[in-house]
Amino acid sequence: MFITPIQPRFCETDALGHIGNTTLPIWFEAARLQFFKEIVRYKKLEEWPLIIARIEVDFVRQLFVDGEVEIRTAISAIGNKSFTVYQEAWQSGQLGAKGQTVMAHFDFRTQSTSPITDDIRANLNKHLLAAP
Amino acid sequence: MFITPIQPRFCETDALGHIGNTTLPIWFEAARLQFFKEIVRYKKLEEWPLIIARIEVDFVRQLFVDGEVEIRTAISAIGNKSFTVYQEAWQSGQLGAKGQTVMAHFDFRTQSTSPITDDIRANLNKHLLAAP
Amino acid sequence: MFITPIQPRFCETDALGHIGNTTLPIWFEAARLQFFKEIVRYKKLEEWPLIIARIEVDFVRQLFVDGEVEIRTAISAIGNKSFTVYQEAWQSGQLGAKGQTVMAHFDFRTQSTSPITDDIRANLNKHLLAAP
Amino acid sequence: MFITPIQPRFCETDALGHIGNTTLPIWFEAARLQFFKEIVRYKKLEEWPLIIARIEVDFVRQLFVDGEVEIRTAISAIGNKSFTVYQEAWQSGQLGAKGQTVMAHFDFRTQSTSPITDDIRANLNKHLLAAP
Repeated sequence: MFITPIQPRFCETDALGHIGNTTLPIWFEAARLQFFKEIVRYKKLEEWPLIIARIEVDFVRQLFVDGEVEIRTAISAIGNKSFTVYQEAWQSGQLGAKGQTVMAHFDFRTQSTSPITDDIRANLNKHLLAAP
Repeated sequence: MFITPIQPRFCETDALGHIGNTTLPIWFEAARLQFFKEIVRYKKLEEWPLIIARIEVDFVRQLFVDGEVEIRTAISAIGNKSFTVYQEAWQSGQLGAKGQTVMAHFDFRTQSTSPITDDIRANLNKHLLAAP
Repeated sequence: MFITPIQPRFCETDALGHIGNTTLPIWFEAARLQFFKEIVRYKKLEEWPLIIARIEVDFVRQLFVDGEVEIRTAISAIGNKSFTVYQEAWQSGQLGAKGQTVMAHFDFRTQSTSPITDDIRANLNKHLLAAP
Repeated sequence: MFITPIQPRFCETDALGHIGNTTLPIWFEAARLQFFKEIVRYKKLEEWPLIIARIEVDFVRQLFVDGEVEIRTAISAIGNKSFTVYQEAWQSGQLGAKGQTVMAHFDFRTQSTSPITDDIRANLNKHLLAAP
């Protein structure tokens, strides 16, 4: 598991007193960015080879502004041209939310999806969950 | 279909030049808020009877800062204690993203899920899709 | 006054029950974008000739999620290479916040500030406040 | 100086390729929250004794998604019922933005501003800048 600590921000709460639902996709994206820096070595932003095809988030328990949140990131599936990132948000020893993100491998020169390269596949495999 | 117009904001773009992925859950939530004002008549925020159990978004095509976005909202499933909202984001005559949100009916007095009341169910039925 | 209506979003509230402070710069930016489309006729985003030098916001009264907000936008000062946008946020007939934004005119070819062009200046003058 | 590290998020960039202007008030608020936890000892959110009266941000240089940002927070003025927080955002050894926030001391029982208490004043004094 790749671990990313997040300090909740006051503007991420909502009028119901806890962290708003729209904040979870933002935290998960923030954690994937740190994670992808290890998986993908890219030089220019224009050559960034991953695009998001789909996100899913299950809200398990309320999260609060007080207390660091830990985002756990791993890979739950690897296909030919796409793979799935599995993530969990923990706070105070309890699971608050979990999510999956389907990422497509993209070639910006041809502007279309393309098979995952061998070195990205090798890096993804290091983080693959046994039972997703 | 319940229609909510959205003017994209500059801060909703990202460095890839189009609307960021984390913006779609925000737009869908904004549209559901307008939609729910018709479905649920509530007096105090503390008595708000719906909580989000799950969101899903499929990213179909890039969306841009120029050009109004139309969010279309309907109901795709109604269960005993929960229902599913189906939403689409259109811009310039093209589908940009679609999503589903599972909402649980919640009783804040007992702090647990509870059967959907008859009047909310009747209002949801008016927006139910024939083929989800 | 240039008027932009804003529907407050649930994620823009915070745990104190009203609209969070960080939301006001976002609403003001959203209104300026609509305003600038009338002031500046540009073709490509890369040629966009305005950059933000400074923002100020005074919080006058709490704003809430229920009730449309009206952003009023005008020009309070025009200099050689910069100008100041004055904005107010109204809800339910009351002033909630006001702000000023200093915009510098920028030439992306030379990557430096440059004198405001005659047609932009003429358009700004149409929205200039008598007493800022 | 109170130091808060920030990892820029991809959704905080905009279509011009760098960190959007509306992100700075969010980062400054996030740093103030950590800072205030040292200054103010409160038990319940409803008793939180500070409200924001005014924010100012000067944008000095572009900030980017790659590279940790350091927010430096100090106190630049202390009055009877209010005080001013001074903040800077640094990245790669360069100042990107600076800001001031005027905070009013607030008594939620009387719903009005009230003199800063002695212990908060003592804590603020520890962070007071000699020359603001």
